[in-house]
Amino acid sequence: MSNYEYLSNTQLNEALRLYLTFLAERGLTHRTEQIETAESFGRVSARAVYARVSSPHYAACAMDGIALTASRTYGATETTPVFLPESTFLRVDTGDPLPQGCDAVVMIEDCVEGNGGITLFTAAAPWQHVRQIGEDLSAGDMILPSYYAIEPAMIGAMLAGGVSALEAVARPRAGIIPTGDEIVPSCGTPKPGEIPEFNSAVFSAMLRQWGAEPVVYPIVPDDSVKIQEALRRAVEQCDLVLLCAGTSAGRDDGTAAAIRALGEVCVHGVAIRPGKPAVLGAVGAKPVIGVPGYPVSGIIVLEELVRPVVDRLLMREREAGESVCVRMGRKMTSSLKYREFVRASLGYNEDGELSAVPLGAGAGVITSFTKADCLLDVPQNCEGYEAGERAVARMLKPVDRVARTVRILGSHDPLIDEAADELRRQDIRAYVSSSHVGSMGALLALARGESQLGGIHLLDETDGSYNVSYVERYLPNGGVALVECVKRTQGLMVAAGNPLGIAKITDLAKQSLRYANRQKGAGTRVLLDYLLKQSGVSPRDFVGYEREEQTHTAVAAQVAAGSADCGMGILSAARMYGLDFIPLWEESYDLLVSLAAMETPQVRAFLRVLSGDGFLRRLDALGGYSYDKPGRVKKLWPRRD
Amino acid sequence: MSNYEYLSNTQLNEALRLYLTFLAERGLTHRTEQIETAESFGRVSARAVYARVSSPHYAACAMDGIALTASRTYGATETTPVFLPESTFLRVDTGDPLPQGCDAVVMIEDCVEGNGGITLFTAAAPWQHVRQIGEDLSAGDMILPSYYAIEPAMIGAMLAGGVSALEAVARPRAGIIPTGDEIVPSCGTPKPGEIPEFNSAVFSAMLRQWGAEPVVYPIVPDDSVKIQEALRRAVEQCDLVLLCAGTSAGRDDGTAAAIRALGEVCVHGVAIRPGKPAVLGAVGAKPVIGVPGYPVSGIIVLEELVRPVVDRLLMREREAGESVCVRMGRKMTSSLKYREFVRASLGYNEDGELSAVPLGAGAGVITSFTKADCLLDVPQNCEGYEAGERAVARMLKPVDRVARTVRILGSHDPLIDEAADELRRQDIRAYVSSSHVGSMGALLALARGESQLGGIHLLDETDGSYNVSYVERYLPNGGVALVECVKRTQGLMVAAGNPLGIAKITDLAKQSLRYANRQKGAGTRVLLDYLLKQSGVSPRDFVGYEREEQTHTAVAAQVAAGSADCGMGILSAARMYGLDFIPLWEESYDLLVSLAAMETPQVRAFLRVLSGDGFLRRLDALGGYSYDKPGRVKKLWPRRD
Repeated sequence: MSNYEYLSNTQLNEALRLYLTFLAERGLTHRTEQIETAESFGRVSARAVYARVSSPHYAACAMDGIALTASRTYGATETTPVFLPESTFLRVDTGDPLPQGCDAVVMIEDCVEGNGGITLFTAAAPWQHVRQIGEDLSAGDMILPSYYAIEPAMIGAMLAGGVSALEAVARPRAGIIPTGDEIVPSCGTPKPGEIPEFNSAVFSAMLRQWGAEPVVYPIVPDDSVKIQEALRRAVEQCDLVLLCAGTSAGRDDGTAAAIRALGEVCVHGVAIRPGKPAVLGAVGAKPVIGVPGYPVSGIIVLEELVRPVVDRLLMREREAGESVCVRMGRKMTSSLKYREFVRASLGYNEDGELSAVPLGAGAGVITSFTKADCLLDVPQNCEGYEAGERAVARMLKPVDRVARTVRILGSHDPLIDEAADELRRQDIRAYVSSSHVGSMGALLALARGESQLGGIHLLDETDGSYNVSYVERYLPNGGVALVECVKRTQGLMVAAGNPLGIAKITDLAKQSLRYANRQKGAGTRVLLDYLLKQSGVSPRDFVGYEREEQTHTAVAAQVAAGSADCGMGILSAARMYGLDFIPLWEESYDLLVSLAAMETPQVRAFLRVLSGDGFLRRLDALGGYSYDKPGRVKKLWPRRD
Repeated sequence: MSNYEYLSNTQLNEALRLYLTFLAERGLTHRTEQIETAESFGRVSARAVYARVSSPHYAACAMDGIALTASRTYGATETTPVFLPESTFLRVDTGDPLPQGCDAVVMIEDCVEGNGGITLFTAAAPWQHVRQIGEDLSAGDMILPSYYAIEPAMIGAMLAGGVSALEAVARPRAGIIPTGDEIVPSCGTPKPGEIPEFNSAVFSAMLRQWGAEPVVYPIVPDDSVKIQEALRRAVEQCDLVLLCAGTSAGRDDGTAAAIRALGEVCVHGVAIRPGKPAVLGAVGAKPVIGVPGYPVSGIIVLEELVRPVVDRLLMREREAGESVCVRMGRKMTSSLKYREFVRASLGYNEDGELSAVPLGAGAGVITSFTKADCLLDVPQNCEGYEAGERAVARMLKPVDRVARTVRILGSHDPLIDEAADELRRQDIRAYVSSSHVGSMGALLALARGESQLGGIHLLDETDGSYNVSYVERYLPNGGVALVECVKRTQGLMVAAGNPLGIAKITDLAKQSLRYANRQKGAGTRVLLDYLLKQSGVSPRDFVGYEREEQTHTAVAAQVAAGSADCGMGILSAARMYGLDFIPLWEESYDLLVSLAAMETPQVRAFLRVLSGDGFLRRLDALGGYSYDKPGRVKKLWPRRD
């Protein structure tokens, strides 16, 4: 912990500048190698490439016809044709060498045969229909300068120029050393306390994408001697080395120490979040970078700090990624101490502008990266943004995909993912982005224009009705429709065999029972509150009311793992985890859809999926659902402004 | 030839729609295969992927500190601390499983040790510093729907969810069959009449880029039985087949016939240029596409017609490429019959807008693709564009590279390429785009704002001076500077040993001598005209005055190949080809630079290169140059408006 005080907070661009200078001073350089031209796609030329032969390398006939001396045809017109006896020309095919003494080709279509020769009605120009030597390339011409990324057409130009091999910049070998006592290879079923190591696979894919060759070393425990041994070996075998810390805070201190033991540290601590504890060092002239263990931090450090080193080793410039200007869909605060990279999803607001909503998730949550459309790049001295303010986003997905994405924020049910998959199987251009924010969250997100639709299941305690009264209360301006989805069974999920013998809601008050609840605003929590009140049980009568999970499956996972004894959820979640299920209530899970969104092709396609056989079969397989006419509009509230 | 009449002229989008429907009706489908998750980058999921284990899969301590029951700490404040005896908590490290009975972790920094226990000054909230089971993913959650292109973070999410293998769409195997009697493998030195085959290497690179696996078959001569045999074998082994015609017009008829013999042809002839004679067919449900032989046509056909089929076989949507709106730098005409794809280079005009100049080169000229920045996509019913009109360009290179490119149009000298390479070796972000348009072309291009600088060597016959009088006559508005470059020796290039015994310009009038001249506007041609006039020789006194080559090396190539006996050029070109050289004249080859361009960092860097040791060493190696102060401004004409 104490070492943390020595961490610097070097500004990102400054850290990079310092580091690249530091590496250059130590003699960092790229390797080169001879490669086959035909296999050179995506590689980088290490020196200028010159044509060895001309292309074409001989004067070639460019048409099927006759070759002759153009001057023999001079004066030929419709009224004054020229007759050529057979001895004055040669018949040629396209690609044939132009015969000695000839300087033009006449297309066969323009030749009238007869009388032991050919009659022409047009004069031929010298060199017509002849591909001259070197029309494309002359021997000695430079085809490519140094350090060009080789594209397909360049391969053609080199082969046309007789260059069958070239000197290319070698792909840098990037060693990846995962470290940490708690880290285990990500295969098989991990035991408690073991964290499956997957960063090396993520980093390998990124490095490969950038043109490097990843080399993944075995996991090294937190032991300074072993880490140094592993580092020494990797530095010998590779062009750069990533020393990856475990997920523990402070572990990167071990990384810095190991690099210092064998070499030097240039920067330890960069003013970015996530990614601050990065270590930039070298052993000899070989770059060694300490990468923090949380996966999101690691991805940011690779993108911002490792990629420029790979580019340098490949002698390749960094092309600017696609950046777009967006409006903030909601307020966001940011630290003045760091340049922050915030994962966000994108949609279009009512003015047709791109609108960004930050995905609030920790650096350990890898799925936040798979869901993000862009990274908001928040400058170091920026306190954050108000809703509606402009910000700069770096695209992670193609921006034109945003318009083809159905944006769902609402109550969790696995059927949303199943419908999304069904939609994609019908149309690979369709995307669904969904996050679980609960039923009340669905209402708020729709009101703020952050989503196009969301699942809700909100019980009105006064009359036992579902959803309608909430929409009227929370969305008084209308502009939405309630679309029928399913009825589903809510109940208590307990361990297989029901060891605590739970049969009804009042059993929650049994002593020693540990409950796992859902987050505030979740329809399932609203239902629990209602059932508790009805049966006279107080939240204080059992442990765990304040323990919040975001999804049905997350609650089921707690129960299955023995970390909770009971939780409320839907039958399909209980089934996935092999849990016993005590049914308590049947509820209406509907979709609330903005009327504007209902006009878009992607939302219409999504709603159409709900009544399709494929989706209904999936519902039956999940279990616990009944349905009448999914996709039907139950009630519509026109917009009132 | 006759079959040509049957070629249709189907509009591109219509051809594609017809073809994809045709393939779907015949049962075109994708293959799937099981692959390792860690190796899945860039692959496409064939079905939805669900988490098998939760991540974290156990309740994990998220800090080094103590684990306890939060309720024991309730009421703790600065003034009312709570003392916890050693028996009421457990010491834990980050990543440890949360001990049974505990529901919170307190950071070690917040613990005051002493008196056989720990004192806390803040109450702990339940589940604080605990990573709950499934915080990232719960078992059963859908990680990816079907048909997602797998990105690095998704690999992490799958491995975190215990998914070590997944069902992916198989990479389609794409067979490439080169055909043609005149085609030979592109290795070794080809003989006259032999055309080295390089299309298969270009197409392989493109297919690989799109995710397919190319399989290149041996070259098949123009023999219908052999072509059918090769096609039958390729269809058995591959998922789609490209039958590549030789470079001859009409050869694609053989392609269509071969496809018809084994299967069906859906479309023959598409309204695009280049690329019209494409054949879209199938053998069974396997797509077979006839690709025209000229390399540029082939590249367009692959991009426009083959790529959508590969995308379909990969179950991947086509992301829109980067398109930009440009102003036409000059007038361009286009056929109403075809949708044309015109290779063009880009620069910025005075208004800071992207300005496109078409590269006028035939479909056989592969280097035009390597030089192009973009493809102008000219609609079928468009007659072309006036200079200054808006057009749509599809980027072939990153658009931000345009601003870093020095744009050179002018007289040819190999030193331009050498300087470009020297510049790149100093700064890999710098690019040079150069085309040979002759000295007069350099003046015109600068006047039109199409270039930033150009080489000129224009002799003023009245006083023997170079360049200055031309600039004053042709660029009366000024705004340019003449930058000193080199003096170089022009002379007559003749075959080694000088078999015709040429010693002076009057020897050109010797009978049977075949000359190779340069294009109109070339400084070398201006010099020839001057020397001819001086010595009283008429252009009609020898053969070949009208035979035009674009570069010194192209003229040297003609002489070296025996296709011409003599041509005027510079010593370095003669040396490259081992020719004898009869020196005639020393001339000033200077650079004319626009004053606006001289303010840009990239042009300044280029001019700086000219005085550097590296460049001067290259000049000495080329030979025939003398220099004083290359890069020095000789004369400057301020802009007069």
